[in-house]
Amino acid sequence: MDETAIGALTFDVFGTVVDWRTSITREGEAFGTPRRLSVDWSKFADAWRGLYQPAMEEVRSGRRPWAKLDELHRESLVRLLGDFGITGVSPAEIDHLNYAWHRLDPWPDVVTGLTRLKRRFTLATLSNGNIALMVDMAKRAGLPWDAILGAEVARAYKPTPEAYLRSAEALGLRPEQCLMVAAHPSDLAAAARCGLRTAYVPRLLEFGPGRPGSQPEPGQPFDVVAGDFVELAEKLGC
Amino acid sequence: MDETAIGALTFDVFGTVVDWRTSITREGEAFGTPRRLSVDWSKFADAWRGLYQPAMEEVRSGRRPWAKLDELHRESLVRLLGDFGITGVSPAEIDHLNYAWHRLDPWPDVVTGLTRLKRRFTLATLSNGNIALMVDMAKRAGLPWDAILGAEVARAYKPTPEAYLRSAEALGLRPEQCLMVAAHPSDLAAAARCGLRTAYVPRLLEFGPGRPGSQPEPGQPFDVVAGDFVELAEKLGC
Repeated sequence: MDETAIGALTFDVFGTVVDWRTSITREGEAFGTPRRLSVDWSKFADAWRGLYQPAMEEVRSGRRPWAKLDELHRESLVRLLGDFGITGVSPAEIDHLNYAWHRLDPWPDVVTGLTRLKRRFTLATLSNGNIALMVDMAKRAGLPWDAILGAEVARAYKPTPEAYLRSAEALGLRPEQCLMVAAHPSDLAAAARCGLRTAYVPRLLEFGPGRPGSQPEPGQPFDVVAGDFVELAEKLGC
Repeated sequence: MDETAIGALTFDVFGTVVDWRTSITREGEAFGTPRRLSVDWSKFADAWRGLYQPAMEEVRSGRRPWAKLDELHRESLVRLLGDFGITGVSPAEIDHLNYAWHRLDPWPDVVTGLTRLKRRFTLATLSNGNIALMVDMAKRAGLPWDAILGAEVARAYKPTPEAYLRSAEALGLRPEQCLMVAAHPSDLAAAARCGLRTAYVPRLLEFGPGRPGSQPEPGQPFDVVAGDFVELAEKLGC
């Protein structure tokens, strides 16, 4: 790939930039310990994330109108509190726990890598997370985005093509001038179908130790593969 | 005003953050000098800006569908090149000159003031400029925005209420949790009608020396008045 032809890097966020599982587990423990709840919060985190795709699919399919991820997360949370037998939680406490997704920690290489990449490229989120979620996360974690794009701006959830195409268009770039960075091969395959370039950064601990998540299809092409964001910066000449 | 109730500062950009007139004049001279054009580029800048509100009014009124400011600026530019008798300019040269709006310089207090304000508040653009324009400007000038909002995200040009209301909503905030910062009393009046708080930062040189621009209505209230962004940071306890 000719990196001089790239104007912007667009990033998947949950799993690629931030370690949602460890962070949601931590937030669950902070919620549960003072309430003396006996809950396996890593299982709770997995279950919450498990409702993510089905909730977005309701929107993607057109069965429900556009709704932000904060709203989908909250509906899933209310359901899970019931499933886990957690009762007596006030609406304000549910809101606070729901905003755990605004307080996710980045992988350790992220801030250093993004800071280097930002010198040369425009860095934009291309996540299914809503704008307020991304802004709160970035301020807390020090993520130096140039723009918050993705689902809410496009009003379309990945892997719907509009999510990628409208993000590129908002940057004033053609799809092939954007390099999609993600830990998930399916996200990169969808981006590539829209004409974006692809950078695969596997995050082997996303789903916890010994659970590597989905792997690339045999022969699936990527423009760049890097072990973390610092190596990505090096490979892109930053 | 109780600044602890403020979550985000939303900024007008052209005139308030950047000195469009000096910058467009400079860009015009850089375009005209090698071509030996005899043009008063400050007049050209004023004329270009003069077509700004009429062009947006076509969209606000519904007479034409949504179009980004880059597109409106380019149409105005093509017209003005004719009015000023400038011929033989290629489409690529027109594009480059049109992107002069992506290369505007900030007022001297801006980067220091924003950097201080960012420690405590979310900083978002709430401009009629499109996303790519705002991103390019911010990268070149070092403007540390947390989010690029405003007309393109809302698909509505100020002072249409949706421009303000959808920007607040994208931040997950109620209007009264947003402080609109602008050099233009009419922008602040429209923001206030939507429930936003207001900070007036007059920029007396926006239209050139001796041309102070529009003044506040007698008795028009503002929550904060500051001489520049550093004083604004001080007044907001940053």
